[in-house]
Amino acid sequence: MPLLVVGSIALDSVHTPTEAREDVLGGSAVYFSYAASYFTGVKLVGVVGEDWPAEHTEMLKGRNVDTQGLEIVKGGETFRWTGKYQSNMNDRDTLEVHLNVLEDFSPTLPEDFRRSPFLFLANGAPSTQMKVLEQMTGPKLVVADTMDLWIEIARDDLEAMLKKVDGLVLNDSEAKKLTEDENLVRAGRKVLEMGPKFVVLKKGEHGAMFFSEHETYVMPAFPTEQVVDPTGAGDSFAGGMMGYLAEKNDFSPSALKEAMAYGTVVASFNVEDFSLEKMKKIERAEVDARFAEYRQMLSF
Amino acid sequence: MPLLVVGSIALDSVHTPTEAREDVLGGSAVYFSYAASYFTGVKLVGVVGEDWPAEHTEMLKGRNVDTQGLEIVKGGETFRWTGKYQSNMNDRDTLEVHLNVLEDFSPTLPEDFRRSPFLFLANGAPSTQMKVLEQMTGPKLVVADTMDLWIEIARDDLEAMLKKVDGLVLNDSEAKKLTEDENLVRAGRKVLEMGPKFVVLKKGEHGAMFFSEHETYVMPAFPTEQVVDPTGAGDSFAGGMMGYLAEKNDFSPSALKEAMAYGTVVASFNVEDFSLEKMKKIERAEVDARFAEYRQMLSF
Repeated sequence: MPLLVVGSIALDSVHTPTEAREDVLGGSAVYFSYAASYFTGVKLVGVVGEDWPAEHTEMLKGRNVDTQGLEIVKGGETFRWTGKYQSNMNDRDTLEVHLNVLEDFSPTLPEDFRRSPFLFLANGAPSTQMKVLEQMTGPKLVVADTMDLWIEIARDDLEAMLKKVDGLVLNDSEAKKLTEDENLVRAGRKVLEMGPKFVVLKKGEHGAMFFSEHETYVMPAFPTEQVVDPTGAGDSFAGGMMGYLAEKNDFSPSALKEAMAYGTVVASFNVEDFSLEKMKKIERAEVDARFAEYRQMLSF
Repeated sequence: MPLLVVGSIALDSVHTPTEAREDVLGGSAVYFSYAASYFTGVKLVGVVGEDWPAEHTEMLKGRNVDTQGLEIVKGGETFRWTGKYQSNMNDRDTLEVHLNVLEDFSPTLPEDFRRSPFLFLANGAPSTQMKVLEQMTGPKLVVADTMDLWIEIARDDLEAMLKKVDGLVLNDSEAKKLTEDENLVRAGRKVLEMGPKFVVLKKGEHGAMFFSEHETYVMPAFPTEQVVDPTGAGDSFAGGMMGYLAEKNDFSPSALKEAMAYGTVVASFNVEDFSLEKMKKIERAEVDARFAEYRQMLSF
């Protein structure tokens, strides 16, 4: 089934303890789209500037990503993010953020995008996420991401949005901030009480936790010694997860658990190189092979 | 099969953000012994002072722990540790350490202890751990624990000890320090190259990783919202793991994986109350029930 994603499209500059890359393809919606494209067709909505390299659009089209919703602002510049990872490759500092065209982004969905049964609202202002939701006609599954910034400056909008979505994906520090609880199990359950039917709490190198009314479980990250660039790990996790759910057209507890595992596996590939480089080198078969390895790893 | 443990016996004072306890039963060998006692008979070797409450010895005897190897030093005082947990309940500061009788502890194994097929060398000076090993006659499985102190002040002894043991259990920060590698997967494999046939890397609330020549896997901690006192989590993990291996009299890869899961489950009970209070309240049936729940949690 078609999967719609609305989110940021970026040109990232990434510094790791050993290497750096300038103006490489990034952004939540881009990582999400590529990760989901192993499983299903993706409809992408986002905004870029005139400086946007057309080759990126072509690359996404080649992955069965519908780019009709890609708005190119005349005279505008694409959103840019510069970050530096610490030696543990898990903590990072944002050195520069230039919102550029993202600042006034007000997504308008192409007519046939509005009927997409699966929707992912990548990190963005909760008010913008709501505007997208209002344009949809009867989606089957809506999952949103958020970040600490919105907890700080738009908490009311965020709480209103949480009552409208089926699922929320957020990271551990965000969950602690949102609930003011340092225990991740309690924090996850408190987020659940704020509205979503399920919550996925991402713990970076330590994996992810799932919370629903009847289930609480943890899945570890796939152990990899080759962590080159963690940028986009969370978005590729969400892309793998939502892509699998859309492919199966099923979000039963068992499908959600398999989707969590697929998200874990796709994210584990993504961190093995800068930007989308590693994901570009692999096909669905490699994803399935690592999924089988991961399942075996957790069975005893 | 009998399981021998040599390690510290302590009276701990523990401060958490909400509560505190003074002079409660603790120490690596004590947590280990109780955790292992769900699975097998334990032979305990350690030292205490004249201030040691006899009721603790009786309690351990009641758990099928052979206390012949418990040395009581006339006029001596029992090892005392005082620690304070931070609000995340994972990081802690040691406020006071009084080694007391532990300072000159040179373990002498009772004759019939020396033929124990399973041995756990709880955290202690590597030279002391070696002295114990030299008194053994043909153990089937020897696993040791260590800590950052010995990496700093007795690295040569530690490296010599690592060549003599089958397995090593250590925590993530210790593995990073020992190998000078921030990536836990690489760090675990580097420890493996130092001698042990397998390495268990403990990550506190994030679970544990297992490394052997042919296997690398991660097991998450059992998700619990009731973390009252994490003291002894690592030792109760090791006790559950070694106790199960001794009960099965098997340390094949599949038995080791089940043992990792049992260690995870026993540790998850231990943190739910101060000292040994929670473990005292449960029986093997509750351990097995949570083990089944944990296995289910990880299957998809």
